[in-house]
Amino acid sequence: MKNHITKIQLKTEKDIQFFNITEDVKKIFNESDIKEGTVNIFTTHTTCAIKINEWENELLKDMNKFMREIAPKEAGYGHDKVSLDGRNNAHSHLLGLMLNASETIPVHNGEMLLGIWQAVLFIEMDGPRGERNVFVQVYGD
Amino acid sequence: MKNHITKIQLKTEKDIQFFNITEDVKKIFNESDIKEGTVNIFTTHTTCAIKINEWENELLKDMNKFMREIAPKEAGYGHDKVSLDGRNNAHSHLLGLMLNASETIPVHNGEMLLGIWQAVLFIEMDGPRGERNVFVQVYGD
Amino acid sequence: MKNHITKIQLKTEKDIQFFNITEDVKKIFNESDIKEGTVNIFTTHTTCAIKINEWENELLKDMNKFMREIAPKEAGYGHDKVSLDGRNNAHSHLLGLMLNASETIPVHNGEMLLGIWQAVLFIEMDGPRGERNVFVQVYGD
Repeated sequence: MKNHITKIQLKTEKDIQFFNITEDVKKIFNESDIKEGTVNIFTTHTTCAIKINEWENELLKDMNKFMREIAPKEAGYGHDKVSLDGRNNAHSHLLGLMLNASETIPVHNGEMLLGIWQAVLFIEMDGPRGERNVFVQVYGD
Repeated sequence: MKNHITKIQLKTEKDIQFFNITEDVKKIFNESDIKEGTVNIFTTHTTCAIKINEWENELLKDMNKFMREIAPKEAGYGHDKVSLDGRNNAHSHLLGLMLNASETIPVHNGEMLLGIWQAVLFIEMDGPRGERNVFVQVYGD
Repeated sequence: MKNHITKIQLKTEKDIQFFNITEDVKKIFNESDIKEGTVNIFTTHTTCAIKINEWENELLKDMNKFMREIAPKEAGYGHDKVSLDGRNNAHSHLLGLMLNASETIPVHNGEMLLGIWQAVLFIEMDGPRGERNVFVQVYGD
């Protein structure tokens, strides 16, 4: 069994920001030389998410707007009132309740079974931040 | 290690449609003869989802209505304006942002640890489509 | 390959209730003595969820309120009308549509790669219940 884990580090500039990490994931998968197993992508932050979706510029804007509507920023959250660092990010945590921290993709015959329109997205929901981390784990034989 | 992967193909007839694929998943699990490991169910489409929930007819209607309310179809999305195929599916992608592409179920002592009310649902969110794919991966010993 | 699976049992007292099971997960992980692999946390109930988020008292209240707003309890759901046990829990299932039943955390060099603010939450969405189950699966070498 091989456990090939690589950390991707990102610097974010906006409060909500999307990153297309598909090529990073594919590169790490290729380096692993694993033919049968899984790829698990996991972010270590409570106000970020890993999602699989289409990467299209207008859609990213739609998603951005949708996320702001689902969990509006200024809504008098209790968590914001006890914030130690002045960072009002209750809404980011509420988005984190809906959007997962990980996604798992099957690997078979040396191929990662990602669909043709499926991109792997890292989503910042409480930026900007100097350092955000994603682990890409390829596990198998 | 065994990596038993089988593709389920579905034809969908409605814009939002639920399929109970529990029996397919159980059949593939039984064929795998894997006693210890995991079952990962993964759809390769950005406008479909894999969820675990109860399969009850009235509940499916409630879910259908709920999904239409969370992300209404005609809301002037930017992605719909750049659609190449005339398919207005921004709302489907927004649902895909909330509903995951995969779910992972543990396997122990030759048993898939699915709860008594838990059904595995494939959810079409941008149908009808002639072909939709789901990979069921049983991984282990 | 080792497949170390332990069941956590919880008794819930409220309709919506959060449990911090991070220490349980860490204990089970340590007992497994697995150095490379994954930790999958899975609940067997359709009206419960496993999420990774921050454990902070005010935030839990914000989440509670947010969940009640996303899927209000009394909204004339069809599923509630066919309830056999008088339990109106359509709204709980709708939350279950958005919040996953599982989460998978990578393990590397004997360490579970959970971020510093990441707690593992079991969320009851249709309590009170005498017995709720969570499987913690540590899989690997």
